[in-house]
Amino acid sequence: MNDRRKHGFKLIRLEEALHRIEQAASSNQPILEETVDTVKSLGRVLAEDIVSGFNLPDHNFAAMDGYAINTKDIQKASDSNQIRLVVKGELYPPDHPTDAVIKNSETMYVACGAPIPKGADAVLTVESARQEEATIVVQTPLKPNRNICLIGEDVKEQDLVIPKGRIIRPQDIGLLVALNRETIKVARKPRVAVISVGEELTEPFRGTPNKIVNNNAYIIGDLIKVFNAEPVLIGIAKDSIEDITQKIITATQQADIIVTIAGCSVGVKDFVPDTIEKLGGEGHGIVFHGVAVSAGKVSGFGLVQGKPVVMLPGHVGSTVATFYLLVLPLLNRQLGLGFKDHLPIVKCVLDEPIRPSKPGIELVLPVKIYRRGGEHRAVPMRKPLSVLKNLADANGFAMIQAGVALDAGASVDVKVYSGLEFYALGESR
Amino acid sequence: MNDRRKHGFKLIRLEEALHRIEQAASSNQPILEETVDTVKSLGRVLAEDIVSGFNLPDHNFAAMDGYAINTKDIQKASDSNQIRLVVKGELYPPDHPTDAVIKNSETMYVACGAPIPKGADAVLTVESARQEEATIVVQTPLKPNRNICLIGEDVKEQDLVIPKGRIIRPQDIGLLVALNRETIKVARKPRVAVISVGEELTEPFRGTPNKIVNNNAYIIGDLIKVFNAEPVLIGIAKDSIEDITQKIITATQQADIIVTIAGCSVGVKDFVPDTIEKLGGEGHGIVFHGVAVSAGKVSGFGLVQGKPVVMLPGHVGSTVATFYLLVLPLLNRQLGLGFKDHLPIVKCVLDEPIRPSKPGIELVLPVKIYRRGGEHRAVPMRKPLSVLKNLADANGFAMIQAGVALDAGASVDVKVYSGLEFYALGESR
Repeated sequence: MNDRRKHGFKLIRLEEALHRIEQAASSNQPILEETVDTVKSLGRVLAEDIVSGFNLPDHNFAAMDGYAINTKDIQKASDSNQIRLVVKGELYPPDHPTDAVIKNSETMYVACGAPIPKGADAVLTVESARQEEATIVVQTPLKPNRNICLIGEDVKEQDLVIPKGRIIRPQDIGLLVALNRETIKVARKPRVAVISVGEELTEPFRGTPNKIVNNNAYIIGDLIKVFNAEPVLIGIAKDSIEDITQKIITATQQADIIVTIAGCSVGVKDFVPDTIEKLGGEGHGIVFHGVAVSAGKVSGFGLVQGKPVVMLPGHVGSTVATFYLLVLPLLNRQLGLGFKDHLPIVKCVLDEPIRPSKPGIELVLPVKIYRRGGEHRAVPMRKPLSVLKNLADANGFAMIQAGVALDAGASVDVKVYSGLEFYALGESR
Repeated sequence: MNDRRKHGFKLIRLEEALHRIEQAASSNQPILEETVDTVKSLGRVLAEDIVSGFNLPDHNFAAMDGYAINTKDIQKASDSNQIRLVVKGELYPPDHPTDAVIKNSETMYVACGAPIPKGADAVLTVESARQEEATIVVQTPLKPNRNICLIGEDVKEQDLVIPKGRIIRPQDIGLLVALNRETIKVARKPRVAVISVGEELTEPFRGTPNKIVNNNAYIIGDLIKVFNAEPVLIGIAKDSIEDITQKIITATQQADIIVTIAGCSVGVKDFVPDTIEKLGGEGHGIVFHGVAVSAGKVSGFGLVQGKPVVMLPGHVGSTVATFYLLVLPLLNRQLGLGFKDHLPIVKCVLDEPIRPSKPGIELVLPVKIYRRGGEHRAVPMRKPLSVLKNLADANGFAMIQAGVALDAGASVDVKVYSGLEFYALGESR
């Protein structure tokens, strides 16, 4: 399995690669926070435990439209023992706080949300009382607290309401607003620099003939956005140690994490690993180069000025695969979520067989998940690694252990690319 | 099942309710489009079929670092018949287009991405050739086209590359950029007005004592954002036909769809249905009021000035449930996705039993999905409908048919609230 092809290039297992990245990052990268307006925090990562400062609700109120009653008054009510209560008035939500009181055999109409008068301990719904002029007739007893929203029923003072690390969803914002939390601490979005390498590349829409559009940088940039971080597109470096050096230095000044695309294989002009090794200085430089996965064999990792640099290969299939394998756990760690990808896992039935990978090489297989007949199915996307359309047709990937073959119909765990893929998990469109 | 409690209030089945909304919307609501920059289109809904104007790639190039060869030269190569080729030069990606030619028994070094010289029909990887001074020694034959990225291999001219209705993901943007599509047509985000009803309500962070914070509007507003639409928060209407009328008129001027929260139950001061009926005019007004679901029984739907108005109940559990049931299909239709919720469905093992709902009433049960031991599990969230924390703890819901009981351990299909919940589907954190 350890395949030394070039100075410094040696395949290590994915697990070992991840272990080394985690170690390097945790001794170098602090987790940063910032304070934002709660109502603008949708999708951010909560960086504090939210503890309630008060009871929610802060008073008892009617959960239904009905009549506030004392359950003792009607505890013997039945078809043959109809009990009559006198309606002493009406209460509506804006009447809170109220001094209203009911005495024996009295009731008050309470609209849903209205405060409960003193002396009452339950609400009889409109449907279960027969109104006759200024009285109601009751035929069934009721238990105390029925149809009342009780003080602290939602949240009690000092309750831990939302734990740190929550991706903030609409319902969390509702709760935070109810708890009077105008601002909250969230993880600062890590800034991730993206450097593309290769003189054959051009930025898009320039009309440059005979060049290849630098689309990988846009894919990686948008993946960075999807995963709660901020891309810093540094542009295209020429195939020279000088230019790559200059771009990496710029990146270390502007970003927390650096990602390079291409220029890290075993070709004559693949200068990225040498540049990182040279820039690294003592205890830094290349941490590893070469991972026993396909796609992604020539990926690697280093440290420059204490900042993690992940080298992604240039074929788009490999670029994306290694983003998920190596960069995403690093982003998540930086967001306070721990060093893991945290991707959703969906059990799928394989539509087609999968042949075993080369010995010792773990397979990262893009798949298209779809839903049919009440189950999720996965179609392997087998086009060459340079084929962008293969990825545009995929919405997740399966990790297949080295040497394992799978038959059509086998069950396979698929990791979904992101929350943007969620329509693919619904009923087939 | 048809339970007439008040003038105009009558429970209909969810299926029937959806049918009526779809019919009303399709005769009144056009689907709108706009043009946006491709690089800013992440997460939008594509409103045109993307057809390629050219082949991608537009020339053959090396897929690996290696040697461009003519496969005929080495078709008889073996351990005992080593074939020697003369290296005539080197080609790199920026050398495209090239006039280079190889003749019989010649080869050229080609870096990954380099153009293929005339006369060559495959690339031998660096690892499979032994270099000896200005020659390479070959011991195995190769098939034509090996390690070459071929013209049109990714996308052929006139191929339908991405179909209309795609939620645009990073890999789609990469492909669009490669296809030189600087702008694309997407669905215009529907504008959805949100009107909260109730004098007991206050906007958040005002320090108003004895009022209830209008948090439901923030939840619904952010759900609208999550589902690719634009919320227009109209504010709080008093419990009067006049004020509700004025707010609905304002909403019809500013939005495509109107959502009201609360004020639609059977209480004395629930004026929303009467207001819509009055405003509706001929052929409009209330289309239905009352759906045989819990939560959400008092929800309803109407048309005012040709615009759909969905009435959501005021208990937050019901507000959110009916947003998913009634509003989301309407939003998706307006986005060109068809009148469906399109939510991801995950098969879960129930952690606790579920008792049957009241006869004739379909249950919308919030659940918390988590993953353990390689399977997704669902915990029913059973707190009262007014309990916000119950929703903040949930990340999806199950639809349980009327009268059906389920045991712990039973399998249940859960609809996930949105792509923001995707971490819940990964390995338990």
